[in-house]
Amino acid sequence: MLQPSWYKSLLQHISSHRYIIVAPQFPLTNQEVKNVRKIAEWLINNLESVLPEKVQPDLEKVAISGHSKGGNTAFAVAFDSSMPLKFSALLGIDPVAGASTSCLHPPYVLEYIPRIFNQSIPVAVLGAGLSNQSTCCLLQSVAPNGVNHAEFFNESKPPCYYFMAKDYGHADMLEAEGIMAILIRILMKSGKGSKECMIRAVGGIVVAFLKAYLEGQIDDLNDIVKSPNLAPITLDPVISIKD
Amino acid sequence: MLQPSWYKSLLQHISSHRYIIVAPQFPLTNQEVKNVRKIAEWLINNLESVLPEKVQPDLEKVAISGHSKGGNTAFAVAFDSSMPLKFSALLGIDPVAGASTSCLHPPYVLEYIPRIFNQSIPVAVLGAGLSNQSTCCLLQSVAPNGVNHAEFFNESKPPCYYFMAKDYGHADMLEAEGIMAILIRILMKSGKGSKECMIRAVGGIVVAFLKAYLEGQIDDLNDIVKSPNLAPITLDPVISIKD
Repeated sequence: MLQPSWYKSLLQHISSHRYIIVAPQFPLTNQEVKNVRKIAEWLINNLESVLPEKVQPDLEKVAISGHSKGGNTAFAVAFDSSMPLKFSALLGIDPVAGASTSCLHPPYVLEYIPRIFNQSIPVAVLGAGLSNQSTCCLLQSVAPNGVNHAEFFNESKPPCYYFMAKDYGHADMLEAEGIMAILIRILMKSGKGSKECMIRAVGGIVVAFLKAYLEGQIDDLNDIVKSPNLAPITLDPVISIKD
Repeated sequence: MLQPSWYKSLLQHISSHRYIIVAPQFPLTNQEVKNVRKIAEWLINNLESVLPEKVQPDLEKVAISGHSKGGNTAFAVAFDSSMPLKFSALLGIDPVAGASTSCLHPPYVLEYIPRIFNQSIPVAVLGAGLSNQSTCCLLQSVAPNGVNHAEFFNESKPPCYYFMAKDYGHADMLEAEGIMAILIRILMKSGKGSKECMIRAVGGIVVAFLKAYLEGQIDDLNDIVKSPNLAPITLDPVISIKD
């Protein structure tokens, strides 16, 4: 349902730091991991040909990320050793694994054991503090307790990071318009703070994490962990587990 | 439902290391925290009078622990600043918070945010790997995903420890007899390994943790963390977070 264009400002912020972003739209099937495999093959064979002259991709330094159900897919892909590309970092942005602990959606990632993920790359999980709340008592929340950001972090091995945007909702970094914006407001609890601040905060964390684990420059990430109040929104809690 | 006498071997093992154990039976009400407050007052005023001559209790060094729903109560009690006794260590033995993430039982402890517990004392959580499995498809498991040991550990602040008895069930350290033993076997998935080994392992972990945080002798606990294969059962995972 979510469109890549709704992430425009967030993706522009990240790409302004010299990162090449490929943000495909997936049809709603259970073929996500297969689709990512095809995209990885396309990246290897075709990415260079669509880039501007003098822009050289470095396929030794690739991160994978996803939002919502796409966050769950990103974890599944990062753990899939048959991928033709090796990923160096994994970011889950308010990932969701299903409707409840007894109704997980494929690809199945969560196992409900701390640090069980068979992952050798660094992980960052960004959670939205309001995504476990519903907009009215007749609707379920979009990311209920037990299948949301917290559980993805709990099952990650170090090095792993957790940032919770305490006062924001699941879709508060999206820029949907028209009827879709209204629909999202009905279905997903939204925070009262400025969306622009949320986008800047998420973008800042993503860039700091990529800098740390694709380029070896960890200072910005350490600064956010040590002083979360540097961010334009309330990040609470912020957790870093290095070993 | 669970009787203190069913924990006899476990409690004897612990008390053989010079710890005084008070293991009350609680009626099934929602008054657990109030009941523990009364017990704490009794400990302060009356414990010494029921102990053998020359046995001196040290009420500056008190740990609290509970199994199953009692584990949930132990967490609630440890976080209650109005308790007349200050606890120095908290152990949850396969704690359970309710029937599902959307059906928690009082006292309410879980919040589904990593490290959210407002706790200043060390925590150890012992989980049973089979307690999230049911004995047949018509029955729910006794400690489903999202309300069991893993979540209690995830919400604990350092220093905290996690030990999972991979091949054992929720009641595999109990010594029930007769009809109750049969009932437990029907309701709760049991492991195939020896119960005696499970009791020795749980007892060993409890004693090592008490030694570490009531007496400052952390070597045994560090040994279990470094070499879980020292235990008479499979402990996997074992996690220690010190800061």
